[in-house]
Amino acid sequence: MPLIRTADAIRTMQIRGAGRIARAAAAALRDHAASIESSDRVSFIKEMTQAGDILRSTRPTAVSLPNAIHIVLRDLKNATSADDARGIITKNADAFIRASEEAIQTIAGIGARQIGDGDTILTHCNSEAALACIIEAKRQGKEIVVFATEVRPWNQGLLTIEVLNRHEIETHYIVDSAVRAFINDIDIVIAGADAVCSDGSVINKIGTSQIALSAHEARTKMVFAAETYKFAPRTLAGYTIPIEERPGFEVLSDEIARKYPFVRVRNPVFDITPAAYIDGIITETGLIPPSYAPSVISDHLGWDLSLIGDGAF
Amino acid sequence: MPLIRTADAIRTMQIRGAGRIARAAAAALRDHAASIESSDRVSFIKEMTQAGDILRSTRPTAVSLPNAIHIVLRDLKNATSADDARGIITKNADAFIRASEEAIQTIAGIGARQIGDGDTILTHCNSEAALACIIEAKRQGKEIVVFATEVRPWNQGLLTIEVLNRHEIETHYIVDSAVRAFINDIDIVIAGADAVCSDGSVINKIGTSQIALSAHEARTKMVFAAETYKFAPRTLAGYTIPIEERPGFEVLSDEIARKYPFVRVRNPVFDITPAAYIDGIITETGLIPPSYAPSVISDHLGWDLSLIGDGAF
Amino acid sequence: MPLIRTADAIRTMQIRGAGRIARAAAAALRDHAASIESSDRVSFIKEMTQAGDILRSTRPTAVSLPNAIHIVLRDLKNATSADDARGIITKNADAFIRASEEAIQTIAGIGARQIGDGDTILTHCNSEAALACIIEAKRQGKEIVVFATEVRPWNQGLLTIEVLNRHEIETHYIVDSAVRAFINDIDIVIAGADAVCSDGSVINKIGTSQIALSAHEARTKMVFAAETYKFAPRTLAGYTIPIEERPGFEVLSDEIARKYPFVRVRNPVFDITPAAYIDGIITETGLIPPSYAPSVISDHLGWDLSLIGDGAF
Amino acid sequence: MPLIRTADAIRTMQIRGAGRIARAAAAALRDHAASIESSDRVSFIKEMTQAGDILRSTRPTAVSLPNAIHIVLRDLKNATSADDARGIITKNADAFIRASEEAIQTIAGIGARQIGDGDTILTHCNSEAALACIIEAKRQGKEIVVFATEVRPWNQGLLTIEVLNRHEIETHYIVDSAVRAFINDIDIVIAGADAVCSDGSVINKIGTSQIALSAHEARTKMVFAAETYKFAPRTLAGYTIPIEERPGFEVLSDEIARKYPFVRVRNPVFDITPAAYIDGIITETGLIPPSYAPSVISDHLGWDLSLIGDGAF
Amino acid sequence: MPLIRTADAIRTMQIRGAGRIARAAAAALRDHAASIESSDRVSFIKEMTQAGDILRSTRPTAVSLPNAIHIVLRDLKNATSADDARGIITKNADAFIRASEEAIQTIAGIGARQIGDGDTILTHCNSEAALACIIEAKRQGKEIVVFATEVRPWNQGLLTIEVLNRHEIETHYIVDSAVRAFINDIDIVIAGADAVCSDGSVINKIGTSQIALSAHEARTKMVFAAETYKFAPRTLAGYTIPIEERPGFEVLSDEIARKYPFVRVRNPVFDITPAAYIDGIITETGLIPPSYAPSVISDHLGWDLSLIGDGAF
Amino acid sequence: MPLIRTADAIRTMQIRGAGRIARAAAAALRDHAASIESSDRVSFIKEMTQAGDILRSTRPTAVSLPNAIHIVLRDLKNATSADDARGIITKNADAFIRASEEAIQTIAGIGARQIGDGDTILTHCNSEAALACIIEAKRQGKEIVVFATEVRPWNQGLLTIEVLNRHEIETHYIVDSAVRAFINDIDIVIAGADAVCSDGSVINKIGTSQIALSAHEARTKMVFAAETYKFAPRTLAGYTIPIEERPGFEVLSDEIARKYPFVRVRNPVFDITPAAYIDGIITETGLIPPSYAPSVISDHLGWDLSLIGDGAF
Repeated sequence: MPLIRTADAIRTMQIRGAGRIARAAAAALRDHAASIESSDRVSFIKEMTQAGDILRSTRPTAVSLPNAIHIVLRDLKNATSADDARGIITKNADAFIRASEEAIQTIAGIGARQIGDGDTILTHCNSEAALACIIEAKRQGKEIVVFATEVRPWNQGLLTIEVLNRHEIETHYIVDSAVRAFINDIDIVIAGADAVCSDGSVINKIGTSQIALSAHEARTKMVFAAETYKFAPRTLAGYTIPIEERPGFEVLSDEIARKYPFVRVRNPVFDITPAAYIDGIITETGLIPPSYAPSVISDHLGWDLSLIGDGAF
Repeated sequence: MPLIRTADAIRTMQIRGAGRIARAAAAALRDHAASIESSDRVSFIKEMTQAGDILRSTRPTAVSLPNAIHIVLRDLKNATSADDARGIITKNADAFIRASEEAIQTIAGIGARQIGDGDTILTHCNSEAALACIIEAKRQGKEIVVFATEVRPWNQGLLTIEVLNRHEIETHYIVDSAVRAFINDIDIVIAGADAVCSDGSVINKIGTSQIALSAHEARTKMVFAAETYKFAPRTLAGYTIPIEERPGFEVLSDEIARKYPFVRVRNPVFDITPAAYIDGIITETGLIPPSYAPSVISDHLGWDLSLIGDGAF
Repeated sequence: MPLIRTADAIRTMQIRGAGRIARAAAAALRDHAASIESSDRVSFIKEMTQAGDILRSTRPTAVSLPNAIHIVLRDLKNATSADDARGIITKNADAFIRASEEAIQTIAGIGARQIGDGDTILTHCNSEAALACIIEAKRQGKEIVVFATEVRPWNQGLLTIEVLNRHEIETHYIVDSAVRAFINDIDIVIAGADAVCSDGSVINKIGTSQIALSAHEARTKMVFAAETYKFAPRTLAGYTIPIEERPGFEVLSDEIARKYPFVRVRNPVFDITPAAYIDGIITETGLIPPSYAPSVISDHLGWDLSLIGDGAF
Repeated sequence: MPLIRTADAIRTMQIRGAGRIARAAAAALRDHAASIESSDRVSFIKEMTQAGDILRSTRPTAVSLPNAIHIVLRDLKNATSADDARGIITKNADAFIRASEEAIQTIAGIGARQIGDGDTILTHCNSEAALACIIEAKRQGKEIVVFATEVRPWNQGLLTIEVLNRHEIETHYIVDSAVRAFINDIDIVIAGADAVCSDGSVINKIGTSQIALSAHEARTKMVFAAETYKFAPRTLAGYTIPIEERPGFEVLSDEIARKYPFVRVRNPVFDITPAAYIDGIITETGLIPPSYAPSVISDHLGWDLSLIGDGAF
Repeated sequence: MPLIRTADAIRTMQIRGAGRIARAAAAALRDHAASIESSDRVSFIKEMTQAGDILRSTRPTAVSLPNAIHIVLRDLKNATSADDARGIITKNADAFIRASEEAIQTIAGIGARQIGDGDTILTHCNSEAALACIIEAKRQGKEIVVFATEVRPWNQGLLTIEVLNRHEIETHYIVDSAVRAFINDIDIVIAGADAVCSDGSVINKIGTSQIALSAHEARTKMVFAAETYKFAPRTLAGYTIPIEERPGFEVLSDEIARKYPFVRVRNPVFDITPAAYIDGIITETGLIPPSYAPSVISDHLGWDLSLIGDGAF
Repeated sequence: MPLIRTADAIRTMQIRGAGRIARAAAAALRDHAASIESSDRVSFIKEMTQAGDILRSTRPTAVSLPNAIHIVLRDLKNATSADDARGIITKNADAFIRASEEAIQTIAGIGARQIGDGDTILTHCNSEAALACIIEAKRQGKEIVVFATEVRPWNQGLLTIEVLNRHEIETHYIVDSAVRAFINDIDIVIAGADAVCSDGSVINKIGTSQIALSAHEARTKMVFAAETYKFAPRTLAGYTIPIEERPGFEVLSDEIARKYPFVRVRNPVFDITPAAYIDGIITETGLIPPSYAPSVISDHLGWDLSLIGDGAF
């Protein structure tokens, strides 16, 4: 698929999900590199940099996209020739794709070890990484019970209980506001992450921070499962992750809304869980405390402030 | 309406709501007293005591019911004759009904004074007393904004926004799990109460305690509006208020539930907000701290342990 | 001094301080009662009620004033004649004045017992009641050290260190913002109160709540010394104590202020210490927890909601 | 047994335990009243007052002793004759003794209701009242598990596990420092009390406050079982309960201690649990929040500051 | 300016401020290197090391000074000749000076992104870095309001409001003890830092930790702006930053002080804000959590324990 | 001592203590390398790897053992010949042994600097590293007082007071449950560590976390002294440190236990102190915040997830 087609697919959300977006971008850069005929090192690098910019602009607030592009293109300035550069890109892209695919599996193994035999686990929303930890614990023969929330307004809890039921895991389904009523029965909360910030806070589905607060109040362990490409380099430069507010009809039907002119729906998709309520973040590089985030961003992902720039992405 | 008819109407939930139940019981006792022909003091009192027992048994876990019956019948032992007893009952019942009707209005006045001009208020569920405070503040010309939650699974938030819209109060409608995301913008949370316990904790719609926790975390004021007949005398004797769990289909349709044999819905109706997260309880006797509850139960409602007994209600 | 002269003296702040105002009002009512020639019970009571209203209107936000008036006039409706009423007023006024004068002494005794030999005490602002506790502890021969704050912008700390120095008490004088730096060396904080609210919170000199928070963080005991006439009946009806903001020149000289058009001084006189940070309130009726405030207001001072009314004071 | 013999028996600790001391004192006063021949009202009252003083001086820091004496002698000034006074004393003493004997049973009933079927309970030290709650819950057929601490240095845990074993209650025995390691498995902590202070704090066996802190951290319920005669009137006057320090050899044998001249044993018997960590106090008048303590002292036990005096006890 | 003159200027505080001191020392070392005639590598290095020691001894507790000297001299042992060493020093010094000059600008950019449009900001004392963030946010067109404290006893708040007024930023000026009264209206607190310790705590102007505590209590964001040369390597070796106590007359005039022999002024200049109350530290390498401090000290500044030594500085 | 003998000695606990085990393993590997005659690089490395596996299997849950083995063998793959490999092993082993021996001394220096003149210190259990800090502070002439706990059930406190007495340090000996009663008098708590986890939590003797909680509540500093080989690499992979439960007779004699069939002793050896209650960890690489643990594991000890594997140790 030519780069432009991939860019379109990301923009129009045909390609969705942090992992899939990242891998598609990496593959697109690799294939694009292969398709460029130029043998001039300088013009080759310039063209690839432009290709990166095009991809990055498709979803300006996605976190995994700039991480993938950065990793694929990062050693280019050391290339001695266009061919060498092409080889670097191919190697980087393939390595990134493979690492990304293996990340969930590694996270599942780490997360499963955090779950004890007989534990009761709570999860919120529908995170592939978080569910992988739970499923792996079940696969290892641990007796577990899961509480899954409804996750208004999209009810992603329905997807979650479908998965848990399929794996024959005993599941309790509750409304979002019932978490505190049950949290004393929970041994560990495992949630996914949409983004991890340089200050150790985690952006995730609306309601997550409320659960983390309840867990903290009850001395219940709270961990997040997050591939490293969820760590947001821009937050190192002080950027805050914009919290998308979606249309009101997702919460209140237009029919009703029209009758209530004094009523307005507020529908933020995410909230921010502060580092103080996070016991650990499970990444494919290990279980880390939230405040270790800058190390992941700089040492593991290879960013520094100069690469983030002022408005590049 | 004869006593038996009232008892039936309470049992079958034709008569609902803590206040209406309490007033209906008081009226039934008064009318029953008028209908008893006996002029023998002892047998009259005995019959009225039985009438109280019949009414009390219609909703064994209701809080306002025993309070109403107790208040109507409380001075009977001082009666010098059946006629005197009848007079006492009539006086007590009429006073209770009037006080109960005025309570909301008094509470509204007190609560409105707690709301400042320009304040943003959050309320949860659909409490007549809490809304009365908000509406009274609006009526006084204060500029206010209200956040109202959806209140899953019954969506009582729809009733609340209907009321607020009718009073032309600017309202923001949010899912239950978005409270912590907005709580820093809230000046005061006002909720109703289903029961107030002798330890100062409050039983209210599921999700309330989570909101109180978020308010506490953000130094946002959290008050409850509760008529005194919501104070539960039985809790003085160590009884806990049973938290009703309602059918799963309210949260998950039977059609889906059938497909997921490993999934079970947990649907508690109420939760418990501990006294530590409550800044005040607005009653018709004034704004009090939660730990003042035993005074309301003993001094205002006139209960002591000997009246509560071991299984009477 | 005729009632009108007393009213003027209170209004123009010739008579200042919660205790002095309260005693002056009680004496004025007593003397006024003595001066009324009417022997008609009804007109006598009416006249005295008006006298109370006049006095109350002189400082609408003072807390001790309505308490004093209420206590002096409270049993009037039981009077059988104008003479009887006059007698009641005289008795009440004299009792109130005496009790008020003894209150500080009683509080000093209670507070001194809370101070251990060798203790380090912190006090803020210049409270007669709080200092009386400290001085009494010193008088009993306890070795004590006091930290006194500067208390910007009026520097009442200067008055406090003058008193402490006069009693030969070793004193450390610090700026207001140094409290947290020393709080781990403090055994007990004793502050005065301008008003105690029905929810157990205390209104006192700006900065008090910050000290209470620091004390709470460090597990340092925090008590307030407050005569019962500091308990604010109006708060039972939901009224909040208005926090006076004084002129900016007290903080920033007009000369400088004029040069900075974008700068505005905010100069609140009081702040609110929540009940959760208060270990006890020392009153002349004993050492009580803050949430016992409604008992003081209703049982000790004799108020209920019906007496507070809607706008009377 | 003549009053002097009872006084001796209390002084020499032949009569021990708050309840037994209180009942012995009440009986001694009653019997002493019966033995006084005087028919003169004034001299009779004087002699009884002296008898009270003698008993009170036997254990100056006991809490139940002044409570018992006060209750037995409290209506004496209304007596019309020596005989009348004698009758009042007999009635008061018998009522107090009966109430004291019934108190544990009432407390057991209240406490048992706080324990749910399937609950795990932790108790510390060897409190008759706390154990009565647990045993009553067992008697009602509830499945319960108890954690009991060792209670250094006297190992009262050995007494506790003997009682629990006798009642066939599944018990886990742990060292004092293991409480936090297990507290997440505990549903409710029930401890006894040596004294309840007017600020709502509770004096109990060393280690109790540490457990309360751990329970608070983990949102585990913490209640105390305390007969009302454990409420300390003197604390209303600001007196602190002296924390006895016992001999070092209870912790470190003299043989070892002699070898370590730089080492000194500190052996306090009690500690203070602040009101903030107490969910409720179970008394024979009901389950109350800790800050309700002044009501118990003044309304139930009948004390006010004037009765406490300056050095009487 | 010869090295000795620079050393004198630092010692006598002609050169003040962490940044200016650091840059002056770097320039002095560079110029000194240029002035040494020796072409012997060993003696050149020795002389430069001595020069570093001389500069370091001028302000033994300054944090930026050893950081600057260390960075300028750090690669010397790899020098192949005196000339090479001289070149290294020149390069290091120029790079350090440039980086130091750009640091404020970078920090301003990061900090400004943390400020939202419409935000209210609180700042304490007079920090160039903190003010740069605020001014940059204003420059970007964000509508902001600033609360600035008086900062007793030196009233640096006067400097701060002068700067803010000059930039036409709406400013509220308050006494230090009023922070908690306004903190619920504040969106973010930005303060400067005198030193950042290896445990993540921050040393700053007295009062800062009290503000951080209030911000934490109210869930208000608290960040510090600190150039990396403020990170104190010696704290890695367990050294605590000495908290200077300045003369009492700054708080209490000698004239008054003389009259009060029992009064002593305590005048600490700094206090310590623990890491738990810090949401982030803005450095020129990015926005980091406080516990990332050891990485800044070791990876960015290049220190390890062996370089810190036992008493060198 | 041949490798097999060392392995046996570790397995049978003749060699005990994290430091001694680690050094013995390092020496055994070095000596084993010297004894292998093979000159083939591949077979030499294979044999040494097996030797490492043998040693590691002797105490599968020890933390220092895999750290020592890993450090000694870590650069083997770069070896150009068997001789080169042997040299690397010798160098690594000698360096590790020397560093391990010096670690306590370095830690003592850092820890002593955290202790102020006049400080009161609390320690728990019998940690060489923690005591070294205290002794070093004493050696430097600081006036200090130490509180030492009894440490049930093994009473390691007896060892601790022996050491402190020998160094003529004024010591107070208390039961474990008395910590909260004295913590307000403590300036700093210093404890050792059995293991430090990648999330910053510390595993240490049962009771430590309870002390840390009390210290946190009272704003008392809490630090741990831990050599870097105590940092547990496996925790990076999500493994939890198994908390050993030892035989019940250590707490309750078998004789008594036999009489109580319903009583079971629970005797966990360790507990977990969460990072939030830890002010710093003193290692031989410096004083760090707990959340810096992953850096120690990866950067200092050289582990990453691929080296930890799935079941190797």
